[in-house]
Amino acid sequence: MPNRQALRLVIVGGVSGGMAAATRARRLCETASITVLEAGPYVSYAASGIPYALSGVIAGPDEVLMHPTSLLKARFNIDVYINSEVVDIDRTAKMVTVQRKGVEGSEFYSYDKLILALGASASMLVVPGVDLPRVFSLRTIDDMIAIREHIASHDADTVAVIGGGFIGLEATTNLTLMGLKVTLLEAASHVYALADAEMVGPVHAELRRCGVNLLLDESVVAIVEGAGDGAGIRPLSVTTACGNKFAADLVIMAVGVQPRTALAFAAGLKIGKLGVSFNEHLQTSDPDIYAVGDMTESEHLVTDRPTSGALAGPASRQGRMAADNVWGRNVVWRGNVGTSICQVFSMTIASTGLSVHTAEALGFNVEWVTIHPPNHVTYYPESWPMTLRVVFDRDIGLILGAQVTGLEGVDKRIDVLATCIQAAMTMHDLEHLELSYAPQYSSAKGPINMAGFVGGNVVDGNVRILHPEDLANLTDDWELVDVRSDEDFFEGHLRGAINVPLERLRGSAKALIDQAKRILLYSEVGYRGYLAYRILDQTGRDVYNLDGGYKSVVQSRVHLPHDMATRRIRGCKKESGVP
Amino acid sequence: MPNRQALRLVIVGGVSGGMAAATRARRLCETASITVLEAGPYVSYAASGIPYALSGVIAGPDEVLMHPTSLLKARFNIDVYINSEVVDIDRTAKMVTVQRKGVEGSEFYSYDKLILALGASASMLVVPGVDLPRVFSLRTIDDMIAIREHIASHDADTVAVIGGGFIGLEATTNLTLMGLKVTLLEAASHVYALADAEMVGPVHAELRRCGVNLLLDESVVAIVEGAGDGAGIRPLSVTTACGNKFAADLVIMAVGVQPRTALAFAAGLKIGKLGVSFNEHLQTSDPDIYAVGDMTESEHLVTDRPTSGALAGPASRQGRMAADNVWGRNVVWRGNVGTSICQVFSMTIASTGLSVHTAEALGFNVEWVTIHPPNHVTYYPESWPMTLRVVFDRDIGLILGAQVTGLEGVDKRIDVLATCIQAAMTMHDLEHLELSYAPQYSSAKGPINMAGFVGGNVVDGNVRILHPEDLANLTDDWELVDVRSDEDFFEGHLRGAINVPLERLRGSAKALIDQAKRILLYSEVGYRGYLAYRILDQTGRDVYNLDGGYKSVVQSRVHLPHDMATRRIRGCKKESGVP
Repeated sequence: MPNRQALRLVIVGGVSGGMAAATRARRLCETASITVLEAGPYVSYAASGIPYALSGVIAGPDEVLMHPTSLLKARFNIDVYINSEVVDIDRTAKMVTVQRKGVEGSEFYSYDKLILALGASASMLVVPGVDLPRVFSLRTIDDMIAIREHIASHDADTVAVIGGGFIGLEATTNLTLMGLKVTLLEAASHVYALADAEMVGPVHAELRRCGVNLLLDESVVAIVEGAGDGAGIRPLSVTTACGNKFAADLVIMAVGVQPRTALAFAAGLKIGKLGVSFNEHLQTSDPDIYAVGDMTESEHLVTDRPTSGALAGPASRQGRMAADNVWGRNVVWRGNVGTSICQVFSMTIASTGLSVHTAEALGFNVEWVTIHPPNHVTYYPESWPMTLRVVFDRDIGLILGAQVTGLEGVDKRIDVLATCIQAAMTMHDLEHLELSYAPQYSSAKGPINMAGFVGGNVVDGNVRILHPEDLANLTDDWELVDVRSDEDFFEGHLRGAINVPLERLRGSAKALIDQAKRILLYSEVGYRGYLAYRILDQTGRDVYNLDGGYKSVVQSRVHLPHDMATRRIRGCKKESGVP
Repeated sequence: MPNRQALRLVIVGGVSGGMAAATRARRLCETASITVLEAGPYVSYAASGIPYALSGVIAGPDEVLMHPTSLLKARFNIDVYINSEVVDIDRTAKMVTVQRKGVEGSEFYSYDKLILALGASASMLVVPGVDLPRVFSLRTIDDMIAIREHIASHDADTVAVIGGGFIGLEATTNLTLMGLKVTLLEAASHVYALADAEMVGPVHAELRRCGVNLLLDESVVAIVEGAGDGAGIRPLSVTTACGNKFAADLVIMAVGVQPRTALAFAAGLKIGKLGVSFNEHLQTSDPDIYAVGDMTESEHLVTDRPTSGALAGPASRQGRMAADNVWGRNVVWRGNVGTSICQVFSMTIASTGLSVHTAEALGFNVEWVTIHPPNHVTYYPESWPMTLRVVFDRDIGLILGAQVTGLEGVDKRIDVLATCIQAAMTMHDLEHLELSYAPQYSSAKGPINMAGFVGGNVVDGNVRILHPEDLANLTDDWELVDVRSDEDFFEGHLRGAINVPLERLRGSAKALIDQAKRILLYSEVGYRGYLAYRILDQTGRDVYNLDGGYKSVVQSRVHLPHDMATRRIRGCKKESGVP
């Protein structure tokens, strides 16, 4: 460890992780020389505000510029250089080579410790036409300004957004708010890949309700100029694998990000599959060089496997912790949890930890419960339903992940569940959580407790459940029993179901159920199905309850046997099954 | 354990705890006989909705009646009897005696297991006049109807609410919404006793902003008929210990609740200081008799000391767990955390675990940090400041409690912190929490992380802090240094402070600080004070930072030397110090 007084810390990259490192470093040591080298024209700006600055929901770009370099000098005594790209790291000489925009020749900075915080750049599909001038990404302030100017100067009113991740969804929402007609093309069968298909159904519905032309299972294979579709001739046409063409005035490419690993690779640092590798102290394979943020790969807190950490929160905390470790503070990075949230018009979707899909793919012994509670008691005004799923280990109930969608209170529930994952809690722990309750905030047994009760019952064997995706595999020896009211049943039900309302199940109505068959019960959201389960189970029947009930089936995009759900699918054929 | 098939479960009390027990019992056992005996005219209603039903924010009383008895029979096969008061428990014969309203004689119910869920009744002050007809409590549906009818039929427009706890605050808010002029009398120096005085300042300001006549340190000693005050002659006059009189058309007594322990006491069950005692399985001193909810005392999860559990959430979960234990499921009640929340007009105040005041009184080695973060990034619209305090063990950083006030996002933060307490997390754990972030929901380093950073710095010794209440004890060997801008300082500052803006602290301005003195730094919310601390500490000065900064002083009701804070106190003299 070099003499603290003389320590020269050089930080490459001046957005969230880099600036967090620089300011923490100064707080830890008044006498170090701290230099930030940023290749772009801005430092310390709020990248996550960019889609909102595009639409003017926030005033931009000034509003997203956090600290002017003069303040960084005055307040933190940090030397910040913009338009200064580090092109080489000489690890032997401990020196970086810098090229300044518009300046010939190179400059050199010696370092004792180096922190790399280069972030990630927008990925582009490798298809013809991606380099056309009307094809944009939306990641930097310059991207945002270019899109806004293009829309204004070309009277653009039709845009194709490629990719339904965060940026794609935020771009879609903000462009629609700007009055543009948006076509959103997603290569997978649902947007927001972090969540399970069934959870995303309400988001698809919200996108369509707000006039977005949502197209799923559409891989873009080319972008060409000039050709039109049925909507007329537009400057660009996006062609998909199945031959569909969508005309647009401009295209926004939002197909993920690419960690900026080239500099680290050239310097011979170890690179993982998803970014620059670091150890628990955020050191790269060179102990004098740290790496933080979007350019790195981290261990996942739940799986211990490599994961990409391309989110502002982890980047910012990693920057701080890298500075701590430069000063020998032994702060251990615990790994990424993957907590994320996205607003899609009036709806919020959020997830943390593992989805069912991911957990199954990784070989976890996975079970999950899905509930549809109100955000607060229904008798208080503005009560809205949400859908909440908790994924857990089938044997011990350890929570592996969670997902929530809804209009209100989604962020609260995902934050509590993210905390539970980080505390290694089980489904039974959720039953015991004492959370705040008054009528306008939650319920006496709120959504988190309720998920615990439902999941605890599964772990304890009080109920056996199947999921909507299991419906496709039901054989003839199953009886599907709808325990909702006659009216509910009449309005719509699963194909092949018989109707035995819960309230009649203790009486002669029970005889309606074929004695020779296994029984799958369902109700609207799973609660009455569970009550019915408890009645029949105690009579010795071989019985299951449908997780999340009819509502989960209707919300899911699971490919059911044609017309298995008879309600609410009209007009949504594009979603190829149940919305 | 009796034969399950034949088990007779009798539940005394049919509100949240009782009905949760009854329905869970049925789900666990189809064949038991389950009887609920409720002394009042309603079962299974939402008591927490009553103040809102009063004002019509929710339609009442039907909206707060959850399950009609017919549904309880049809769906759960539970026999519910209203207007049926249990007047005796014969523990030897295992039989309860019931008197039905309007029916002569008694009925008898045998039980194998008995669950007591009698709740609590409204406390009344022991002062002359509490039994006058215009003096009400607000706890039951009948109370609410009586108040509403009284207001309507007497054209009442002035009400005195006695007591500033939950019910008092909710009553004040709802009565004001109804157009009444409310005088709120609180015997202590601040309302919402669960929180520390300093945290409640914004709530006092909100009450006054909304036209409430808030009177603190006013103990009511009598209520008399007919006498008036300066506001004219009213039917009632409330007299306080210092001789003040407040006229009102009606009085609402909201001075807490009294657990209904008489029946248990008469039956010889063990009664604690705060209610009926139970063991970890919720069994009273008679193992065949369980007790749940407001009538009981519970261990506090943090202190292991007896605490009252008069809240809907714990009551409801205890009911469920009592039923589990009746069926031998060995579910252990973990103790109360004391998580609570209350809306006061547009503001929310919430707390969990121990306050500073309580922790100190119990002898904990307590420290705390107070921050004033925005609910979400300031550049996104509708960003509002909140105040968040976390109380922790000084040596190991274990979180003991938390309090939050603000306009938005308060419930989310208190729920996360309540979860952290239940997971036995430390301040350092808060630094690592990965919570959801997008601009409209939080910040990349949101309030919870920020509290962890600030508190972690205190635990690690990166900063030493004092609190606003310490200002009164500063001696002459202290220099008070305001590191905010000239403009901030000019607008208002702590008396005796000198102004050395942070940005000039590294230069010659440092010489302005008396070398012989200890230094207490402050800034607006504590952040710049901390930066200044780190600069001066590294030059070997004996320095402290003021927790929560100038804002905490302004918000607090701490009795400072007269006029110590020169800003914003005009017009608030009633609050006897700083608002």
